[in-house]
Amino acid sequence: MTAGVNGQGSTRGRVLDVIRAAGPVSRVEVSQATGLAQASVTEAVKELLADDFVREVGRGRSTGGRPRTLLALNPSGGYAIGAQLGWSRSAVVLADLTGTVVASATEDGADGRPPESIVAGLAEDIARMRGIADAPVLGLGLAVPGPIDTPHGTAVQLPESSPWADFSLTHALEETTGLRVVLDNDATAVAVGEYWTGGSDSSGVFATVYMEIGIGAGIIVGGAPFRGISGNAGEMGHISVDMAGPPCHCGNRGCVELFAAPAATEARYASVTGRSLSYAQIAEAAERGEPEALGVVSTSAEALAAALVSFANVVDPDRILLAGPGFAHAADVYVDTIQRRLDAAMFVRRTHRIAVRTAGSSHLTGALGAASLVLHDLVTP
Amino acid sequence: MTAGVNGQGSTRGRVLDVIRAAGPVSRVEVSQATGLAQASVTEAVKELLADDFVREVGRGRSTGGRPRTLLALNPSGGYAIGAQLGWSRSAVVLADLTGTVVASATEDGADGRPPESIVAGLAEDIARMRGIADAPVLGLGLAVPGPIDTPHGTAVQLPESSPWADFSLTHALEETTGLRVVLDNDATAVAVGEYWTGGSDSSGVFATVYMEIGIGAGIIVGGAPFRGISGNAGEMGHISVDMAGPPCHCGNRGCVELFAAPAATEARYASVTGRSLSYAQIAEAAERGEPEALGVVSTSAEALAAALVSFANVVDPDRILLAGPGFAHAADVYVDTIQRRLDAAMFVRRTHRIAVRTAGSSHLTGALGAASLVLHDLVTP
Repeated sequence: MTAGVNGQGSTRGRVLDVIRAAGPVSRVEVSQATGLAQASVTEAVKELLADDFVREVGRGRSTGGRPRTLLALNPSGGYAIGAQLGWSRSAVVLADLTGTVVASATEDGADGRPPESIVAGLAEDIARMRGIADAPVLGLGLAVPGPIDTPHGTAVQLPESSPWADFSLTHALEETTGLRVVLDNDATAVAVGEYWTGGSDSSGVFATVYMEIGIGAGIIVGGAPFRGISGNAGEMGHISVDMAGPPCHCGNRGCVELFAAPAATEARYASVTGRSLSYAQIAEAAERGEPEALGVVSTSAEALAAALVSFANVVDPDRILLAGPGFAHAADVYVDTIQRRLDAAMFVRRTHRIAVRTAGSSHLTGALGAASLVLHDLVTP
Repeated sequence: MTAGVNGQGSTRGRVLDVIRAAGPVSRVEVSQATGLAQASVTEAVKELLADDFVREVGRGRSTGGRPRTLLALNPSGGYAIGAQLGWSRSAVVLADLTGTVVASATEDGADGRPPESIVAGLAEDIARMRGIADAPVLGLGLAVPGPIDTPHGTAVQLPESSPWADFSLTHALEETTGLRVVLDNDATAVAVGEYWTGGSDSSGVFATVYMEIGIGAGIIVGGAPFRGISGNAGEMGHISVDMAGPPCHCGNRGCVELFAAPAATEARYASVTGRSLSYAQIAEAAERGEPEALGVVSTSAEALAAALVSFANVVDPDRILLAGPGFAHAADVYVDTIQRRLDAAMFVRRTHRIAVRTAGSSHLTGALGAASLVLHDLVTP
């Protein structure tokens, strides 16, 4: 479980990834982009056409010789189902090969519900989506809040008393659905989703910061997730921005989540105004320019920016994407604050700049990321 | 410039890396360890024997058939020169293929000296060492404090007024010595040195924390350095442990270096005791149990531990090694404090533990790391 590199994976996988990122694209261009011999590319394309993952989509402009046939992903060549299990809400999507959501469902979250009832609920949605798919469903991607225990397919929840602690969600869903299940933490899943659907090629190092209840980051290196030794890399919500700060549920002190996560912003808003609004309401008010709302959202953004400077000094990415429901409103406040702070304070700013922008922020972003885990397996199993 | 993965690199490189890590080892064992066909292993070994990088070192115990010939690195099959440019001191070593130092020299550091005079001084030492080597010198590894600008071979020093800012040390040394020069930051070089000489195989994710004047980390993933997008990953000395803390020369606030680096410990000791000692003297006194010295070293260790919990939550390594002159004394204080803090506060502690231990702490550790950059190129160019 290590970071991938540009060009990692099978010939077939590398060819498919270039067609995904650059398509419509000719065989010759695929050969140039991968450095693979044209014969190998032709062979791999033949297989991918036979599997229906790729289709020919007409011809490019002639470059003297006869115009070249262009290749693209075949959207309906296969499907992936993605399920995100959140605390307050869960979501399930059916995504086609290009990562377009063709069906979705939302469920209550895990909070207070026993694992068995969650599995039953997800299984129902999954069954319905398999009915909709008019091509093979390649697998089920599962995104959960970290930490995870990949070998055991377990969502290792804190506090340790949680009924989830020793429950293998992966195995339970494999048994119930008969589908191959790919488990990852939600932030990594969202980063893979951004990679798959955002047209990224396999160069570069980027991080996707995912904010819902908590905050985490997914790191993509050379086209593959950087997972660390246990699949738990990127837990940047638990970067401490104050080593003498208040205790966090995780056991650490002064974690950035305590200052930047939605619950912190709600509490700060209530203490400033005496009114208690949901984070979504506060962020909307900030978007409208309501001063107190803008003030508390800015405080959250400043804390997140401080943690991201430390994060950037360790990971050295070329871009940082902000994703998830936490950025559905007032995203500009976060983007501007983080960009300004990185430009002023990151250690390697004289060598390169980090571009900050937003990515998917719908309540389906996590589930689409989960589905993308399955699609990405076609490239680097 | 991305993280490597287990099994990355050429057949020849993978075979050499297994012989380095596991030797003396038989061809059959190499084939098992790499998953390569025995024919490919035999072919690669033939080349490596011809190049003198590997030698046959007798026969293993018979497993029924005739005993198998064992292979090991040939120490004198080639040499690498490593130069570390530090602020207070520079060092140059000649290392054999196994990473054993066969000659060394120390020089004044870069502080206050113009780049040209540094290059002249290093070139003299390098020439002397080439005279000692009785086999080809494969290249010159160069370790400098980060940040670096690899494409330009530049040590990008802060403050920006530094005469080093636009000086290409790589090109200057290439011209003067005629050797191929491999530049990296000192912490990454030390991590590669630990990988090469520490018998690590290419599985796992580890970080080497290097403390001299400053603090940085080198991250090894699947046998290759994780460099980020610009070769500046792992700058953990500039993880902020207090977002409202004092300004750091880097432009950030509350960087752990301000609380944990030798200069901070010297200042704290002076303010506590009214006596001014060097960090080495303070650390020695702490080792002897002198209470005030132990107190200020513990304060440094606590700050470093706080930053390393954040670091571990982002990188998810399986072990952390403490290396460099900063850990030459009172290393136990650092190891114990960091281990305790990780065990209590790291986010994924229920999934796995991180082992903390010391590695090389001599004033040649950085230069040996630099030489290892050249040796490691034999495995993953």
